[in-house]
Amino acid sequence: MQEFKVRTDLAVELKEDVAAHSYPENGVSFQEEYIYDGRIKVTKVIIENSAGEELTGKPVGKYITVEAKELSQQDTDFHRDISEKIAVYIKELLPKKRKCRVLVVGLGNRMATPDALGPAVVDNLFITRNMDEQFLSEELLRKCGKYEVSGIVPGVMAMTGMESAEIVKGLVKTTKPHVVIAIDSLAARNTARLNTTIQIADTGINPGSGVGNHRMGLTEESIGVPVIAIGVPTVVDAATIVNDTMENILDIFSLSDKLKSMAQVLKDFSPAEKYALIREVIEPEIGNMYVTPKDIDENIKSLSFTLSEALNIIWSGGI
Amino acid sequence: MQEFKVRTDLAVELKEDVAAHSYPENGVSFQEEYIYDGRIKVTKVIIENSAGEELTGKPVGKYITVEAKELSQQDTDFHRDISEKIAVYIKELLPKKRKCRVLVVGLGNRMATPDALGPAVVDNLFITRNMDEQFLSEELLRKCGKYEVSGIVPGVMAMTGMESAEIVKGLVKTTKPHVVIAIDSLAARNTARLNTTIQIADTGINPGSGVGNHRMGLTEESIGVPVIAIGVPTVVDAATIVNDTMENILDIFSLSDKLKSMAQVLKDFSPAEKYALIREVIEPEIGNMYVTPKDIDENIKSLSFTLSEALNIIWSGGI
Amino acid sequence: MQEFKVRTDLAVELKEDVAAHSYPENGVSFQEEYIYDGRIKVTKVIIENSAGEELTGKPVGKYITVEAKELSQQDTDFHRDISEKIAVYIKELLPKKRKCRVLVVGLGNRMATPDALGPAVVDNLFITRNMDEQFLSEELLRKCGKYEVSGIVPGVMAMTGMESAEIVKGLVKTTKPHVVIAIDSLAARNTARLNTTIQIADTGINPGSGVGNHRMGLTEESIGVPVIAIGVPTVVDAATIVNDTMENILDIFSLSDKLKSMAQVLKDFSPAEKYALIREVIEPEIGNMYVTPKDIDENIKSLSFTLSEALNIIWSGGI
Amino acid sequence: MQEFKVRTDLAVELKEDVAAHSYPENGVSFQEEYIYDGRIKVTKVIIENSAGEELTGKPVGKYITVEAKELSQQDTDFHRDISEKIAVYIKELLPKKRKCRVLVVGLGNRMATPDALGPAVVDNLFITRNMDEQFLSEELLRKCGKYEVSGIVPGVMAMTGMESAEIVKGLVKTTKPHVVIAIDSLAARNTARLNTTIQIADTGINPGSGVGNHRMGLTEESIGVPVIAIGVPTVVDAATIVNDTMENILDIFSLSDKLKSMAQVLKDFSPAEKYALIREVIEPEIGNMYVTPKDIDENIKSLSFTLSEALNIIWSGGI
Repeated sequence: MQEFKVRTDLAVELKEDVAAHSYPENGVSFQEEYIYDGRIKVTKVIIENSAGEELTGKPVGKYITVEAKELSQQDTDFHRDISEKIAVYIKELLPKKRKCRVLVVGLGNRMATPDALGPAVVDNLFITRNMDEQFLSEELLRKCGKYEVSGIVPGVMAMTGMESAEIVKGLVKTTKPHVVIAIDSLAARNTARLNTTIQIADTGINPGSGVGNHRMGLTEESIGVPVIAIGVPTVVDAATIVNDTMENILDIFSLSDKLKSMAQVLKDFSPAEKYALIREVIEPEIGNMYVTPKDIDENIKSLSFTLSEALNIIWSGGI
Repeated sequence: MQEFKVRTDLAVELKEDVAAHSYPENGVSFQEEYIYDGRIKVTKVIIENSAGEELTGKPVGKYITVEAKELSQQDTDFHRDISEKIAVYIKELLPKKRKCRVLVVGLGNRMATPDALGPAVVDNLFITRNMDEQFLSEELLRKCGKYEVSGIVPGVMAMTGMESAEIVKGLVKTTKPHVVIAIDSLAARNTARLNTTIQIADTGINPGSGVGNHRMGLTEESIGVPVIAIGVPTVVDAATIVNDTMENILDIFSLSDKLKSMAQVLKDFSPAEKYALIREVIEPEIGNMYVTPKDIDENIKSLSFTLSEALNIIWSGGI
Repeated sequence: MQEFKVRTDLAVELKEDVAAHSYPENGVSFQEEYIYDGRIKVTKVIIENSAGEELTGKPVGKYITVEAKELSQQDTDFHRDISEKIAVYIKELLPKKRKCRVLVVGLGNRMATPDALGPAVVDNLFITRNMDEQFLSEELLRKCGKYEVSGIVPGVMAMTGMESAEIVKGLVKTTKPHVVIAIDSLAARNTARLNTTIQIADTGINPGSGVGNHRMGLTEESIGVPVIAIGVPTVVDAATIVNDTMENILDIFSLSDKLKSMAQVLKDFSPAEKYALIREVIEPEIGNMYVTPKDIDENIKSLSFTLSEALNIIWSGGI
Repeated sequence: MQEFKVRTDLAVELKEDVAAHSYPENGVSFQEEYIYDGRIKVTKVIIENSAGEELTGKPVGKYITVEAKELSQQDTDFHRDISEKIAVYIKELLPKKRKCRVLVVGLGNRMATPDALGPAVVDNLFITRNMDEQFLSEELLRKCGKYEVSGIVPGVMAMTGMESAEIVKGLVKTTKPHVVIAIDSLAARNTARLNTTIQIADTGINPGSGVGNHRMGLTEESIGVPVIAIGVPTVVDAATIVNDTMENILDIFSLSDKLKSMAQVLKDFSPAEKYALIREVIEPEIGNMYVTPKDIDENIKSLSFTLSEALNIIWSGGI
């Protein structure tokens, strides 16, 4: 089974699948903690070397995951607090410069609700690159002077005919940011993680990830500057829904004398084998579909404020 | 199994499930024809009496379904032609008046792409109720004078706190239309039908139908005037995805000696029994999710033009 | 000049024009105070009787105006504070009930930025009418149980064919609120007041007011329940721009021997006479135009949050 | 007065102001024709040399203006016809290549209605750069194979912190188009021209032009490839409104014995002098405002379809 590769955008989901492979020796480390009275779970996954890459299919790097049920709910006070926590994790990954030029990229499709997280974050961003320092008060300059922020919503390939990476690469050439922060909607393997998880990684966006399945990656290698990726799972892979339901069916079969032994055959499959089986037999058109909650519009609104607020806290000197 | 009721918003899908129940004697009639060089399939389902209602779970009435693969594609010429066909079917259901007052209701959530069909249709509608006849040319008056058209996008319950039916009922009281045309996004049982099928029915919108699951119906009984419902399946029920995939898995199992007998047990279930089993064991949160194509934004744009054009053709005297 | 009537949506602007008419004896009272370290100016205008109505062209009632330069700027902390102040003024005008049913109406055109204030407020409103009290925690019930809130964005006549008043009247019949709160974009007479002034009045929306020039009013008389109107000037009347510029030209002419006497002739006109002259000679198509700031999109976003927050504070028990 | 420079985005408006300066000798040529039964007026202005540039403040190049009252109305048939005419004029300016790579840039602010023309055109564009030629039918390839089209909505400086020119320059570097077509909302000097005029120029977008007042230009010089600019006046300069009204006031004064002589003083000013006087004394904040029609949302929708259709006709081989 060493050759098996899990298809998930979330490093934190690796644990579930890779558990049997005693990952620590394999260049993968996990670390969990609970903060904010246990309401927020923070997981740090580090892929340390090529063995870790081999096992997980994820590039070497640091993946911080913040999970909280309340993220999908509209509790303004909670969102303000979690924004401050997230700001700290993002700031840690930013280059330490006297004046840091940041380009924030809102990936995804503004017109398709579950894929509109990135555009919504950029719409609410505090942009400073165009400000004339002459006109800023000394106080504002002291607070905001450390970052020069620009933002872009590149649009999706079906609407632009261009890869997001081509667009961002061009901007990097002409505007010369030190770092790119890319916001994207992700696909989860687990419905419980929908709109309740934020992943921050210093590895950029990899090919095939995201709701829109970026064909090219958006990484330091492809665009020339480091890329911090911030992702939130807003859809579930259709195969996951099938898999979860099958598990429940098998559990019921196990209670029947007649069906017990057959259920056992399938139970003996590993999770990854079952998932692979399903992906193989699922109707091909389902690969072009996503599963998303009915109140996704409210989730996107609420999550995008949490993230834009987290970023704005960094450059307004709030932390 | 007589008591079994299929959950689908599309009368045309009944055929598939009810086939074994020899529906004609049961008050259900089907009629199919191909038009436009076979590119468009038109099905008329008539639920004739309470026996038909009992069997299908759909109220007595006329259901016209227009199906065409090209509906989900962006071929402007085809869309213009199909708009004219659809206009004819809708016009047949409108009351014959010297001056017909029509209220078009765009159901669904403007902010959630797959549920935004209704609002998009109303946004592109030719509205005439507010026109002052004094200022119309004689030609325009002759052409458009037969309809007095108003339109509303009531919004969804989570955003208004009100049932669409409450809102429309109030409008019917104050503006006294002769007929309401309600446009809605539907859930399909079959992925092939997504964005390729338009259903026109004279029975209104029934409780529990639509992507948003209207709690109250929008019917002549509830609002006081006849309601023509125009629906397009833009999402698939998650249970359908599971069911379709399981079928494929069972087919594979049938080839294996070890698994053949197990597959047989499940194969012996009727489609409806299997679907019911899945709905029972599916994770409850999945009931609040929908499955939708990745390019749903383009589909909604294209379909909403087809429908608004169809309606505009009627009141601009084009047919 | 007693018969002269000023065309402005803002009671606070009356003062400037009516100053010469010794309004107190005439049934009009003004009261000003500065709060929040002088950063917010609050003016209360009371039209006390028909004499006041005659003079001002505004119906008997209470008009509270909150003015602050920072309202048009994006200072999140300030907006949160001013929301609380505004909440207090609005709450004073609400009926005192054990359980108050409120319908919030977002007037204006969602698709035309300066007229989109009302829709944007309703989009961010905390809606409670659809909540099932069974599922609310006791704490939430104690806090939010006093209000049952619904909201609607009726759309503008060009898009619906119906007057907003017709739509709201129907809703009042079917959902029976105790009070309607109507949010609207207004026209100001003074560019300095753009996006810096919020007017709260217990007299509803009067015919001819608002950016969209409501033909029918939205008042207790027309819809059957009291209407609290909340308005923000987001556009300026084109005649105002002309008038202000002409004043400046005349000031320059006064310095020239040749032009001094001409300037004097015009200077002798009262402000109202000059305004009336301009309205008369202005090109008719300009009557269908508005003057609005280039960053109106940011103003509307910021103001709509301030207002929706103010309302949400009331029903979440924050004051 | 030779040094006077008119501030207008429309070459066709030059005629009105420069008439007295016998432009032909000065390197400016005008040519007018009426087509489509006289319903469409086409004006070609050619700025031939630096003398022409000096006089008009516009760079050497070809400016084609298409004017029609019906452009601001919703007559679908007319719009389809005019799209075909416009397609011809645009095609003339495109480079003749066996395979022409075109990047369409939708300038302006998606969130501010009068400035949203460019984004709306790109939203409805037929994009081909991402199509895999392997999967195209031979017929489609023959028809569409001549153009490789990409599109971008760069956003405005207040939201991105970047000049549109910086963004486009980057894209030119990474995607190497042969030509850029830039769509923009313009300011007119004459209310009659609002939403009824389309200007196509081979000179690109110049600094200071457009509703958003681009600080940098978007020209062959700045981005490295030729730029075809397509602009529609959707707002009027506030100074224009003042000027037009003042003219009308002076006409009235001329009828009065007392005021006649003074009116004459002002009448003796040239149009340009009057306009300059007004711009000088107008309140500075008015410089940050625009005047726009109340039904601008419908105008933008209708005009954007006309333009996207014109472009789509070119690359779908329709002309």
